[in-house]
Amino acid sequence: MMKTTWTAALRVDDGFRLEDVDPGGTPGFTGSKQQGEKELAARREHLGDLQERLFAGSRSGEAQDAVLLVLQAMDSAGKGGIVRHVVGGVDPQGVELAAFKAPTDEERAHEFLWRIEKRLPRPGFIGVFDRSHYEDVLIGRVRRLAEPAEIERRYGAIADFERRVAASGIRIVKVMLHISPDEQKERLMERLDRPDKHWKYNPGDVDERMLWDDYMAAYQTVFDRTSTPVAPWHVVPANSKWYARLAVQELLIAALEDVDPQWPVADFDVAAEKKRLAAS
Amino acid sequence: MMKTTWTAALRVDDGFRLEDVDPGGTPGFTGSKQQGEKELAARREHLGDLQERLFAGSRSGEAQDAVLLVLQAMDSAGKGGIVRHVVGGVDPQGVELAAFKAPTDEERAHEFLWRIEKRLPRPGFIGVFDRSHYEDVLIGRVRRLAEPAEIERRYGAIADFERRVAASGIRIVKVMLHISPDEQKERLMERLDRPDKHWKYNPGDVDERMLWDDYMAAYQTVFDRTSTPVAPWHVVPANSKWYARLAVQELLIAALEDVDPQWPVADFDVAAEKKRLAAS
Repeated sequence: MMKTTWTAALRVDDGFRLEDVDPGGTPGFTGSKQQGEKELAARREHLGDLQERLFAGSRSGEAQDAVLLVLQAMDSAGKGGIVRHVVGGVDPQGVELAAFKAPTDEERAHEFLWRIEKRLPRPGFIGVFDRSHYEDVLIGRVRRLAEPAEIERRYGAIADFERRVAASGIRIVKVMLHISPDEQKERLMERLDRPDKHWKYNPGDVDERMLWDDYMAAYQTVFDRTSTPVAPWHVVPANSKWYARLAVQELLIAALEDVDPQWPVADFDVAAEKKRLAAS
Repeated sequence: MMKTTWTAALRVDDGFRLEDVDPGGTPGFTGSKQQGEKELAARREHLGDLQERLFAGSRSGEAQDAVLLVLQAMDSAGKGGIVRHVVGGVDPQGVELAAFKAPTDEERAHEFLWRIEKRLPRPGFIGVFDRSHYEDVLIGRVRRLAEPAEIERRYGAIADFERRVAASGIRIVKVMLHISPDEQKERLMERLDRPDKHWKYNPGDVDERMLWDDYMAAYQTVFDRTSTPVAPWHVVPANSKWYARLAVQELLIAALEDVDPQWPVADFDVAAEKKRLAAS
């Protein structure tokens, strides 16, 4: 099955080493870019169908299932493109999107998971986190925004939190989009070359870029400490945008197929309603 | 200009009478369904481009512009289809969608505009209200959910509220999707005929349908009292789904063209950043 292939090819298991992943690779897919784009479009309908069933199933108040896509990456790796081209393919009425920026003063005054918990998807929804609680152990660690003991504590807190979230009925799909430093340089340079892209450029991106190795080490620790059976990480090579979009779409499809949502049975008398409607 | 045609053809002006509108009409468009669908797809890119400029302009914290699409209609008129096929055509990262159901106890304890104000779009966003504060003078009036004096008060409160919202930089696009009772009967019957549509059917829909004339009178009063220069109503014939989608897309485009959002100028030294990036 294709879903098994994709999930298995991208999942972070015991012994995983980020440095072994080729950001230019296309694991699980042997076709060309053109074939990949065709496949992305072809499978969109299936994703949309699954999403509608998930949503429908929750309307009666019975099914508690939801899906949460967590997106993490270095700048310009393509999180926005995933939201636009993959998430954008399903009905916006079934999507809850949360973009986490640097925490506000109010958020900082609370435990780091406080603002995250508030944005978990309701039953029936596909939630998308554009950045997430992982920033607190990524930039948090690299930039030493908290004491080492607090950073250490967070890995366990995250694993506990995600276990509880998964038990509540939310399928967690964690994705790191992995690009190479050269690819990032090219993409940032394009933003500088095009006035219509200047708004996407932030001088701070280069500051973080200069700490590339530190970030990769922080990601490796994230994978070691928080890739669990109920909330595994997936590292998606992202130098090829078309491949990353196709891969994330397949990961979402696999999560939804795992839920296997069914059309709910009518909680009213269909024949009686037909008569009543016909007479109205 | 096409935008002038559409806006003018659909806008509620002095002397407007809902009963004069043919729900099967296609004002402002003389083509076939096939041409309409082609036009919808062709204009999507323009809407997406305008949305991205709107979003970009707000990132620097300078531009305060936003757009708010308010959707009202009888059941099955196609609000969901507008969200899916028109709003769904733009980047979900720039959209804030709010679906207003029957108010909760907490919401009921507040003034009726309290829950509305909280969901206004932030600068740079396209907000979409699937139902809105107008329910409080539609079902509120028809079902006598409040005293007549309170209902009366609300029209003025709404006009004041929208004047303030418009002054804050939010372009308000108010749309009533107008279907005929026969068309509604057909659509509801289809929901009853198809098990995969049962979840969309609510026996209460037939109860409201039986009060059709009361609802049309309540809409007429809404138009008389709340179609203002800064927040005019548009009545969009909706028996043809393809037409309604095309028309609403054009109304959104016209609102965004009115904002005329520009790519923001870089607030950093582009040449210096290129050097810094190249050296990194």
